[in-house]
Amino acid sequence: MLFRQKGIMRITGTFLDEITFDIPSNNWGTAQWDMDFAAMKRIGIDTVIIIRSGLNRQAIFNSKAISKKVKLLPVHSDLAQMFLELAEKHKMKLFFGTYDSNIFWRDGRLQDEVDINLELVDEIWQKYGKCSAFAGWYMAHEFGRLYGDVPKSLKKVADRCKAVSGGLPVIMSPYMWGKKAVGEDAIDIEQHRKEWNDILSILHKSVDIVAFQDGHVDYNELKDYICVNKQLINKYQMTAWSNVESFDRDMPFNFPPIDWRKMQWKLDFAAQAGVDKCITFEFSHFMSPYSTWPSARNLFFRYCEHFGIDIKELCD
Amino acid sequence: MLFRQKGIMRITGTFLDEITFDIPSNNWGTAQWDMDFAAMKRIGIDTVIIIRSGLNRQAIFNSKAISKKVKLLPVHSDLAQMFLELAEKHKMKLFFGTYDSNIFWRDGRLQDEVDINLELVDEIWQKYGKCSAFAGWYMAHEFGRLYGDVPKSLKKVADRCKAVSGGLPVIMSPYMWGKKAVGEDAIDIEQHRKEWNDILSILHKSVDIVAFQDGHVDYNELKDYICVNKQLINKYQMTAWSNVESFDRDMPFNFPPIDWRKMQWKLDFAAQAGVDKCITFEFSHFMSPYSTWPSARNLFFRYCEHFGIDIKELCD
Amino acid sequence: MLFRQKGIMRITGTFLDEITFDIPSNNWGTAQWDMDFAAMKRIGIDTVIIIRSGLNRQAIFNSKAISKKVKLLPVHSDLAQMFLELAEKHKMKLFFGTYDSNIFWRDGRLQDEVDINLELVDEIWQKYGKCSAFAGWYMAHEFGRLYGDVPKSLKKVADRCKAVSGGLPVIMSPYMWGKKAVGEDAIDIEQHRKEWNDILSILHKSVDIVAFQDGHVDYNELKDYICVNKQLINKYQMTAWSNVESFDRDMPFNFPPIDWRKMQWKLDFAAQAGVDKCITFEFSHFMSPYSTWPSARNLFFRYCEHFGIDIKELCD
Repeated sequence: MLFRQKGIMRITGTFLDEITFDIPSNNWGTAQWDMDFAAMKRIGIDTVIIIRSGLNRQAIFNSKAISKKVKLLPVHSDLAQMFLELAEKHKMKLFFGTYDSNIFWRDGRLQDEVDINLELVDEIWQKYGKCSAFAGWYMAHEFGRLYGDVPKSLKKVADRCKAVSGGLPVIMSPYMWGKKAVGEDAIDIEQHRKEWNDILSILHKSVDIVAFQDGHVDYNELKDYICVNKQLINKYQMTAWSNVESFDRDMPFNFPPIDWRKMQWKLDFAAQAGVDKCITFEFSHFMSPYSTWPSARNLFFRYCEHFGIDIKELCD
Repeated sequence: MLFRQKGIMRITGTFLDEITFDIPSNNWGTAQWDMDFAAMKRIGIDTVIIIRSGLNRQAIFNSKAISKKVKLLPVHSDLAQMFLELAEKHKMKLFFGTYDSNIFWRDGRLQDEVDINLELVDEIWQKYGKCSAFAGWYMAHEFGRLYGDVPKSLKKVADRCKAVSGGLPVIMSPYMWGKKAVGEDAIDIEQHRKEWNDILSILHKSVDIVAFQDGHVDYNELKDYICVNKQLINKYQMTAWSNVESFDRDMPFNFPPIDWRKMQWKLDFAAQAGVDKCITFEFSHFMSPYSTWPSARNLFFRYCEHFGIDIKELCD
Repeated sequence: MLFRQKGIMRITGTFLDEITFDIPSNNWGTAQWDMDFAAMKRIGIDTVIIIRSGLNRQAIFNSKAISKKVKLLPVHSDLAQMFLELAEKHKMKLFFGTYDSNIFWRDGRLQDEVDINLELVDEIWQKYGKCSAFAGWYMAHEFGRLYGDVPKSLKKVADRCKAVSGGLPVIMSPYMWGKKAVGEDAIDIEQHRKEWNDILSILHKSVDIVAFQDGHVDYNELKDYICVNKQLINKYQMTAWSNVESFDRDMPFNFPPIDWRKMQWKLDFAAQAGVDKCITFEFSHFMSPYSTWPSARNLFFRYCEHFGIDIKELCD
């Protein structure tokens, strides 16, 4: 479902980032999340993506599969269940993220990373697969270049996702090895094209949707990069989305909500490149009227003004 | 127009920082800016200074002059027009900032920097010069030492500002090469005096008002520095203001609103040194009751309490 | 006074951090502090600890003792008096922090640090000792390892505290030389045990309560560390508290409020190790419904929900 107005695409999906690597917690309870889902829905978001089942020793539910290899810190509540129920209530599709140890796969133990995830995918499907909102999977491991056996290994996880769930779609959201990711070590656009051609040639039958993060290259290069990405994704008959980041990578601390003008540029470039859908990382911290960043609330207002979305009864 | 009470100067001017280099956006629309100007006015601010027409590829209006040499990112609204109208509505004087490419003048292409600005000054005056709030100019390039030909080059821009506008005043707001700017590379106060004597000897007939930023030296050295600056500015028959920064340079992230006690010290030192006016960088993020930093709201309350300013109907 | 529910300890004490080293100011006035003390009281906080009388050139009251050796920046209000009056009003115990020059004791001039503090302790007791809320002392100097003569020198200050005040208790809150403090230079748990055994063997008759900061080691190591600390503190017949930090040390900027789940873990570990009381650094910035960090307000709500504390009339 795409909305278009003034030639600019809307954001219709968001990540849910409740085991965060580098984003401070909103410290919300269920009631706040419910309000937040209502706000998402109001602006046309129909898709939510749990960014990961767990990261290192922390998990969103008390997973037996992860616990076999990693001593988890206590899990006092089942966030997966809560997100699925909220997605059902607000009539959204939910994509369920896999587990990122943040250790094994960076550390020569790729097989451990795969093994945990194969078992975890089974556990997730058994535990949550009946929820009507469960619409697919998200590959939690983020990478920006062709690293050795990473694509081949992750392919096994994606294949298992599809196998257990009767072929539900699988999303990935890689980054670009640009100057806002790695400074001087950035690769140029042709090297990017070459490496991602190789990566997608491995993953194309296992992953359905590729939503590149749009924040690691300069605004003046971004359209070219999105176009290259779109060509590659088309070539392998996958679906191209854009992950229109709603936080600002240009500020002296990481990360405040983005300037509305920057988000407009990025939505424009995505539309011009012809991607199928725009999602964002992520609504709840950086675009929500309930975020702990007050400028996120203002970003929400600017966004709604721009698209003529009536939010009178939502926020006062 | 100076307010004095309890021997301490008030802040009567502020920068408008809507193309920011390192300050996250408030994401305000016109209505929020209008409220903000009303809050400024209420505490006695009579002067607003647009910090720059543009920075690198971003501009506050769709400038033909800049576009000749720099491919601008899309400009969807005319912030210059908005600021001028709000200044008129709230009966304030507006000083209009020039353009800082952030590239050419750091990169041996000073002449390009000058050329863009000469043409831009003409364009600004033609487009906005009739607005009754247009009270003068602001030199957007900030520097702290005597760098080669920078003063001589910027003099050309300042001269053009005065020439096209019938001699309207020109402000600059340099920094001090102190330890909070450059750590161990800081220069001592005598070296500062020597270099700024040379700089002002070049600029004194072109720039009218010098408002040194007050944040780059320790609080216990600040009064001496402001006194040195005042002497130099007097020597060249220019006017001395102090740019009393309202953000805190001593915190582990850049930048939260300043501690009210620190602002009091800096206002005291400025008064003791006898400057003519205190302005701040800047009200809207760091002192405004509507800022996205809640401690800015509290700073506003402390400031108003201190000076006995009644704000009951303004903020509730 | 300990509260227990669901096997988890509550926080019953907090630091007051109004001369901050690295925490941006809330910019509160007396009315805001009064509201904040009421919120503390409501959740069961019975103990407040002024983290320091002064830091370098800044002080919470205009101290003659400090001024003899350090040229203080102007002190426009007496925060010590304000905190004591609020503690009385809200029926809390107040522990008064000593002075940390942040220079002398790091710079081979330990005796200067001691001399200022000996005289300051006398001045504090003379000026504020009659307040009924004055319940003891806090040793402002924080350290994590056995540094030369630091423990022996600080013992003199602690002894003076007890001597002037008829033996009122003295608190210290050291840190652990863990990876979140010093990265690769972290010491292991056995080295930690060895050094703190030596330190406490010097301080045990002068300091009564040791409240280790709990934020510098990984969550999965924390319980072991708290247990070691508890054993050492018991061995020297001192009292063990835990300083359950309410800010998050894992984020890319320093410091947002902590994720509620992390605070739960740390409260659990403290309870399991059997400490006598949990305090926090600190309520007003990181857990308060009035903090300038909105996620602190949410942390307060989560905390109250968890312990079944009714706050309806407090926050709306």
